[in-house]
Amino acid sequence: MNLILLEPDEVRDDGTAMMTGARAAHLRHVLRVSPGDDVRVGIVDGSSGRGTVISIDDDRAELQCRLDEMMPPRPAVDLLLALPRPKVLRRLWAQLATLGVGQIILTNASRVERHYFDTHVLTEATYRALLIEGLQQARDTRLPRVVIRRQFRPLVEDELHGLFDGGARLVAHPGAQRSVAAVIRQHRESRALLAVGPEGGWNDFELDLLQAHGFQTVAMGARTLRTDTACIALLALLHDALQQETTAAEP
Amino acid sequence: MNLILLEPDEVRDDGTAMMTGARAAHLRHVLRVSPGDDVRVGIVDGSSGRGTVISIDDDRAELQCRLDEMMPPRPAVDLLLALPRPKVLRRLWAQLATLGVGQIILTNASRVERHYFDTHVLTEATYRALLIEGLQQARDTRLPRVVIRRQFRPLVEDELHGLFDGGARLVAHPGAQRSVAAVIRQHRESRALLAVGPEGGWNDFELDLLQAHGFQTVAMGARTLRTDTACIALLALLHDALQQETTAAEP
Repeated sequence: MNLILLEPDEVRDDGTAMMTGARAAHLRHVLRVSPGDDVRVGIVDGSSGRGTVISIDDDRAELQCRLDEMMPPRPAVDLLLALPRPKVLRRLWAQLATLGVGQIILTNASRVERHYFDTHVLTEATYRALLIEGLQQARDTRLPRVVIRRQFRPLVEDELHGLFDGGARLVAHPGAQRSVAAVIRQHRESRALLAVGPEGGWNDFELDLLQAHGFQTVAMGARTLRTDTACIALLALLHDALQQETTAAEP
Repeated sequence: MNLILLEPDEVRDDGTAMMTGARAAHLRHVLRVSPGDDVRVGIVDGSSGRGTVISIDDDRAELQCRLDEMMPPRPAVDLLLALPRPKVLRRLWAQLATLGVGQIILTNASRVERHYFDTHVLTEATYRALLIEGLQQARDTRLPRVVIRRQFRPLVEDELHGLFDGGARLVAHPGAQRSVAAVIRQHRESRALLAVGPEGGWNDFELDLLQAHGFQTVAMGARTLRTDTACIALLALLHDALQQETTAAEP
C-alpha cells in the first residue's frame, strides 16, 4: 500500500477521516506509524495528498488529511478483454489497476465458457475492492471504468465507438507481423484500445469483426502466453510505446 | 498446455511414451483426443515434435513420438531477483518460464524477510513442476537454470561474472531516467541480465554494489508495481527491445 485510499464519504468536512479494518491494520502493523507520522492518502476518484496520524490503536486509525494534489490523468490505455477464467480474472483486477487502464471492457467470445459469467468476481463489490488494492499499489486515485457485455457483436458494432472514440485499436493475435510499438508509431495517437482474446484465441468471425472495426493485429514473439501474463506484458509494451510517442511529440 | 512435456526417461527406445496423472487427464478432458490424433510433445531440455495417441483411458495415455525439432535457443534474458514473498514467487515461476528466461538467480536483500527462504516454493520439486507448466504454455522445452544464493554481496562480487559473462546489465529502480529500450539501444548487446529488487526496493548499499558491477538503472513510468507485475512487464519490454536490436542488426 503506497497510498491509503479513502471513500469520499469517509472524509469529514474538517479533513479528518476514521479508518477501521484492513487499512487501520496496515497502518499499524506494516507501516508501523505513530501519532504525528505522515502517510500518503487519496480519495477514490479524487485528489490526493498527506494524512497525519491523529490516533491509532488495534481497531482504528484517525488521520488529518491535506488533499492538495489533483487527480492524475486517465491512463492512456483501455482494455477490451474476453472474459477469462474467474481465477485468472481475480488475479488480474488489481494488476490492471496498478499498470493503469482507463476502462476495462469485459465481453464474451466463442471460446469463453458460459459459466465464467456467473462468478462473483464480476460483482462490483468484489472487483471494486481489488481495483482499489491495485490503485493503492500504484499511488493512483482514479478507478478504472468497468463495462461488462455478454453480447460481443453489438458491443463491437454499436457501442464501442461511444466507449472509445479516438485512438489506436490493437488486437493481440499470435502470428501477427507487427509489434505494438510499430502500430503505435504509425498511428501517432495518444490513446489506445487493446483487445485480448480468450485462451485459445478469437475465432475467425470475431477477429474479422474486430479488424472491420479498425483493430490492427499485433504479436509479441513466438511464445503463447496465458491471458493474465499477456495482458500485463502487452499493457507494459503499450504504455511504453505511447510514452515514447508523447516524448517524441514534445517540442 | 500447448505442448506436452515428457521427462527424458519417459520415452522408450521405440519412441513410445506412457503418461499418467495430470497430462493424461489433460489429453482426455481438455484436448479430448482419441487414438490416432496428433499432439505437440517435447522432452524437457531436449527436442520436440508430434505424438500420435496410441491409446487413452481415464488413467493413462500412450503416445508414439516423432521428435524431429531441435531444442529452441536459450532465451536472451536472465533474471536476478530479490526473493519475493512465497505466495508471489509461487505465481511467478510458471509465468517466468512462459515469458522466457535463461536463468533465474534468487538472492537476499535487506528488505527481504528472512523466513521467505524457508518456503517449499524454493525446493526443486516444487519449482521444477511450475517451470514445466510454464514451458508447456509457451511451447518451449528448455528449463530455466535456477540459482539460489542467500549472500547478496559474494554473489554480485565473485560469482555473477561466471553466471552471466556478457551482455547488458539492468536494474529496475523507480525514478531512473532511462527506459529499458534506451539502455538496450546503447549497448547493442544480444543478451541482458535484469535485476529486480524486493517490495520496498534495494537499499543504497545494494544499489551502489549493482551499479559498481555494471548494472544501469532503468524505470518504467511513475507507477510502483508489485514484484510479480514488475517482473512480467520488464521482461516483456526487455524481450521486445532485444528483438528490435536483433532485427535492426540483420543485413
